[in-house]
Amino acid sequence: MEQVSLATKTPSNVITCKAAVAWTANAPLSIEEVQVDPPKAGEVRIKIISAGICGTDNHILEGKNKVPLPAILGHEGAGIVESVGPGVTTLKPGDKVLTLPLPECRECVYCLHPKGNFCKKENILSPTGLMLDGTSRFTCRGKKIYHLYGTSTFTEYTVADEIALAKIDDAAPMDKVCVLGCEVPTGFGAVFNTAQVTPGSTCVVFGLGGIGSAIVMACKASGASRIIGVDINEQKFPRARALGVTDCLNPNKLKKPVQEVVMEMTGIGADFAFEAIGLIETMVAALKSCVMSYGVCVIMGVAPSGSQLSFDPAELLPGRTLKSSVMGGYKTRDGIPKLVTDYLQKKINTDVLITHKLPFEKVNEGFKLLREENCIRCVLTLRP
Amino acid sequence: MEQVSLATKTPSNVITCKAAVAWTANAPLSIEEVQVDPPKAGEVRIKIISAGICGTDNHILEGKNKVPLPAILGHEGAGIVESVGPGVTTLKPGDKVLTLPLPECRECVYCLHPKGNFCKKENILSPTGLMLDGTSRFTCRGKKIYHLYGTSTFTEYTVADEIALAKIDDAAPMDKVCVLGCEVPTGFGAVFNTAQVTPGSTCVVFGLGGIGSAIVMACKASGASRIIGVDINEQKFPRARALGVTDCLNPNKLKKPVQEVVMEMTGIGADFAFEAIGLIETMVAALKSCVMSYGVCVIMGVAPSGSQLSFDPAELLPGRTLKSSVMGGYKTRDGIPKLVTDYLQKKINTDVLITHKLPFEKVNEGFKLLREENCIRCVLTLRP
Ligand SMILES: NC(=O)c1ccc[n+]([C@@H]2O[C@H](COP(=O)([O-])OP(=O)(O)OC[C@H]3O[C@@H](n4cnc5c(N)ncnc54)[C@H](O)[C@@H]3O)[C@@H](O)[C@H]2O)c1
Ligand SMILES: NC(=O)c1ccc[n+]([C@@H]2O[C@H](COP(=O)([O-])OP(=O)(O)OC[C@H]3O[C@@H](n4cnc5c(N)ncnc54)[C@H](O)[C@@H]3O)[C@@H](O)[C@H]2O)c1
Ligand SMILES: [Zn+2]
Ligand SMILES: [Zn+2]
Ligand SMILES: [Zn+2]
Ligand SMILES: [Zn+2]
Repeated sequence: MEQVSLATKTPSNVITCKAAVAWTANAPLSIEEVQVDPPKAGEVRIKIISAGICGTDNHILEGKNKVPLPAILGHEGAGIVESVGPGVTTLKPGDKVLTLPLPECRECVYCLHPKGNFCKKENILSPTGLMLDGTSRFTCRGKKIYHLYGTSTFTEYTVADEIALAKIDDAAPMDKVCVLGCEVPTGFGAVFNTAQVTPGSTCVVFGLGGIGSAIVMACKASGASRIIGVDINEQKFPRARALGVTDCLNPNKLKKPVQEVVMEMTGIGADFAFEAIGLIETMVAALKSCVMSYGVCVIMGVAPSGSQLSFDPAELLPGRTLKSSVMGGYKTRDGIPKLVTDYLQKKINTDVLITHKLPFEKVNEGFKLLREENCIRCVLTLRP
Repeated sequence: MEQVSLATKTPSNVITCKAAVAWTANAPLSIEEVQVDPPKAGEVRIKIISAGICGTDNHILEGKNKVPLPAILGHEGAGIVESVGPGVTTLKPGDKVLTLPLPECRECVYCLHPKGNFCKKENILSPTGLMLDGTSRFTCRGKKIYHLYGTSTFTEYTVADEIALAKIDDAAPMDKVCVLGCEVPTGFGAVFNTAQVTPGSTCVVFGLGGIGSAIVMACKASGASRIIGVDINEQKFPRARALGVTDCLNPNKLKKPVQEVVMEMTGIGADFAFEAIGLIETMVAALKSCVMSYGVCVIMGVAPSGSQLSFDPAELLPGRTLKSSVMGGYKTRDGIPKLVTDYLQKKINTDVLITHKLPFEKVNEGFKLLREENCIRCVLTLRP
């Protein structure tokens, strides 16, 4: 097994390396030897340096979000281009990149619209688990293994489409910037793009994990004067307070529904409510927590596949707005490299959003941290 | 009965006049002799000159929207101040006014917020049927009769709170401007305030009655390049086309769900979708009809009391926005007199939104027109 970690190229240019394979939901990931095919036209093969564990990966592993399995999970990764397929023009071996679960083709109607970011080239809503050409680049024990959202980062090497990679500054510290591939743009964009939080406003954030914490940071940066944080895991509270949360609520310890408590605390409700958990009940609670006449509720959590969000439309009638976005509404290839530049120029400090680091092989421990501990984001590091 | 129409003042200053009383839902209104008490502090008694029949009145009469009964319905009215109660400063006898189902107190947190219009002084969502002081001014056959949304316009005389009346220009033609009390601001505001329709956009409007027609006019005025109109009553189509609808769809004659047809017609969905019917199924269809990545769905219809709007939150995730508003988001006392001025200056022609006129006594015929015919708005006129 020791030898396997030293990735080897076969004559046909297939790389054999280690990856964490999700054979089924509701089971630990299995560290396996996999074969990674060379990139085809428009594709890029990447050596992954670090990968964050996102709540979405956790939903998938818990069987709540359906994706084709077996697959190599992980979608938030920083890596270095190993080789490029024919026709790739914007990337070359040695370039630093972030993987993008939402690509930006710059050609489709959504990419061309000034407000659109939901690129038509990757269907996050009904994932195929395949590259754009409809095939997979991964093999394990002779069996084809699915990709995840065209990224798959819990592996030493992966293949991604050129349009699903953000080229980032050469100076970027590769063990830190992976969170700029999902956690940071999702949380920041929820606040800056989707909600457009205003100075002096009151915000309530449901879920104080990775996305919720990034939302809190951005609310504070937007000048929110009060930020109410909601989580059932009180171990998240100290860090949330350090990031800007002014009041922490644990719904399990309240005598009333949390939305009623928020109403009482604020008198009229929050100006902006964010859901960063992925449960129907907290989505409805978020909606009911915002002020009736002009409140904006932004749902960033991803509900279990096939869920139904249900509420009396009279909740909206007084003037509420309900919105959502993927990756915080950022056009990914345009917006994310700029966030990396902001990070390098110390305009944003996203290091505080990484609370744990583990070697890639301990990925299952990382999931445990995310579910049970005081973890905001656990980053897996791979041997360079 | 002839004598009753000549309203008489008793020594105590009670006016006895005719009104259309809704004793129960699902029955015709009954033209009755009623006693209208003098206005109390902060109140104004009005001689109604004209009153439009709105879809909301119809929902109430059909038992879908629950309000306390027996009541005098109607909320869209133009009238002349007959007398004012103590403390009324902004209105005097002889002033022309429009009744406002949504008041503007200019004091509550919602009124004071730049984006708020859902004044706390009248709770449209759980109507009491009473004046702000918790009592009624109407009596019929010795029984107290409820008000509707603090307005009640299907009567020769009514009493309203000063904050629920818009003082309008003396030159306003009283048989025409009543629709500026609900139909016009609701439809125009849905487009100008709530959706903020952009030039060149594609819009879809579900329901081509009064509100839907005003929405169509405003979409056209906003420079929409395509306006798809949806109704099951094809008698509404010729007028809708004249107002700006480019494509008419009757869902009952389509082989597929209407949202799929809109998707096919537009390739990606409408930029803006409006629901102006008040049914859960058409609200969901409107949401699914708008473009995933940046579409805005505005629900103006009022669903039956206690309804649940249900949809997969994945419908929102790609970047859709779902909104709603009462009275199109206008601060009523500020915004509506300006619309009347615009009408008088011929900047807007809202006469085309009135298709039928009937004497007040034929109110039941008016409801029939609304339900079954080619009617956009039927206006009831009262003897001056
Ligand atoms: N829209 C997007 O583009 C996008 C991107 C990334 C993640 N997400 C979604 O955002 C959500 C959060 O992701 P994350 O990475 O922050 O996950 P996370 O696991 O780090 O955070 C979730 C938090 O919710 C808390 N929580 C769980 N159940 C709760 C309950 N009933 N009430 C209150 N708090 C509860 C947990 O304790 C945890 O702190 C997930 O649904 C994920 O799929 C969406
Ligand atoms: N938000 C607000 O402030 C506000 C103000 C006024 C009215 N409203 C609501 O707006 C809605 C419309 O009011 P209106 O005055 O235009 O009523 P209306 O009766 O004039 O118009 C309703 C239209 O919907 C059509 N329709 C009915 N069922 C349909 C179906 N299944 N599919 C397609 N079309 C269908 C009818 O044929 C009619 O043309 C009502 O729900 C009313 O309560 C809301
Ligand atoms: Zn993620
Ligand atoms: Zn695209
Ligand atoms: Zn109305
Ligand atoms: Zn008010």
